[in-house]
Amino acid sequence: MKKINISNSAMKRLPIYLHYLNVMHDYNCKYISSTKIANDLKLGEVLVRKDLALISGKGKPKVGYLKQELKERLEEILNTSTINNAIIVGAGKLGQALQFFDGFEEIGFKIIASFDNNDDKIDNHYIYHIDHLIEFCKNNVVSVGIITVNEENAQSICDLLIANHIKKIWNFSAIQLNVPNGVKVKNENLAASLAVLSLN
Amino acid sequence: MKKINISNSAMKRLPIYLHYLNVMHDYNCKYISSTKIANDLKLGEVLVRKDLALISGKGKPKVGYLKQELKERLEEILNTSTINNAIIVGAGKLGQALQFFDGFEEIGFKIIASFDNNDDKIDNHYIYHIDHLIEFCKNNVVSVGIITVNEENAQSICDLLIANHIKKIWNFSAIQLNVPNGVKVKNENLAASLAVLSLN
Repeated sequence: MKKINISNSAMKRLPIYLHYLNVMHDYNCKYISSTKIANDLKLGEVLVRKDLALISGKGKPKVGYLKQELKERLEEILNTSTINNAIIVGAGKLGQALQFFDGFEEIGFKIIASFDNNDDKIDNHYIYHIDHLIEFCKNNVVSVGIITVNEENAQSICDLLIANHIKKIWNFSAIQLNVPNGVKVKNENLAASLAVLSLN
Repeated sequence: MKKINISNSAMKRLPIYLHYLNVMHDYNCKYISSTKIANDLKLGEVLVRKDLALISGKGKPKVGYLKQELKERLEEILNTSTINNAIIVGAGKLGQALQFFDGFEEIGFKIIASFDNNDDKIDNHYIYHIDHLIEFCKNNVVSVGIITVNEENAQSICDLLIANHIKKIWNFSAIQLNVPNGVKVKNENLAASLAVLSLN
């Protein structure tokens, strides 16, 4: 795969483009223009043009991009061919919501198990006891750990995931995690997102 | 309240500071410095200093901010005194996760009801039938609508919320919503967030 330099904010738009090509754009045409995508997705035209130029060149004058080619290029960058296995720690409502969220596979992520310490939640099918995490990580290639436990336990769960060679952490707890170099954390603070709506 | 100009990205950090002052910072001192906050939250020092200067002036040389004053100022800006009532449409797992998420009240949002069209989910206590939404909005001041329905229904639910005078929409569906001027939408694309972890 050709290496490209792509910003976090542009990277966040790629699944939106891919989803658009996969599902939302149901026209039967071979080509798609950045203008059409920008209009349909209500994104800025210059922005979409720049994003697509970065990942798939300039397109054909007047008609735009070959849809299939653009789709494949997006899939290649999002690395959807090699599914990234993810596990969730914390099988509360949020953890369960994420476990059954169907938008992840499209972008190359598959949630293969959840873990919790509450026996009532454990079904040994989707949700396992946290004590089985080490063994599970030995027997499965897990690249992403999703933390949906409370603040008090988030750091120790993070340490456990890292000790089990997981280098990508998606953190839904409100605390900032301490991680060594080489481990990537994406923080998801839902309260902070909602707060943006307070702005007038 | 003194009007301040604050960017979306800074606004997203305010609940983090408030939460830090409320819960995470348990020292018994009267003052707190931006350096201490930056270190504890692992945020850039310059960034925190700028944010706090914007909302609460420069602080006292050497010691920083009066904690209580800073907390009150954050609460004032986040408008936690007047609780913003929010409703959720779509009582699936994600909707339920949000309904029982406890980080929202701290920043001034209260989820007062959810709506769904699936009779099995309706308890008429937390979750009501979607047919009751109009009446509910007449009897309650609702300022935020949270959309956790599927893509096919997201736009019509959005229209329904707007018709019932809700002007702030938090959209968890993958589609971009069409809204009139004066309505604010915050899109939450979880798949796109996760995709950022694909970046090497």
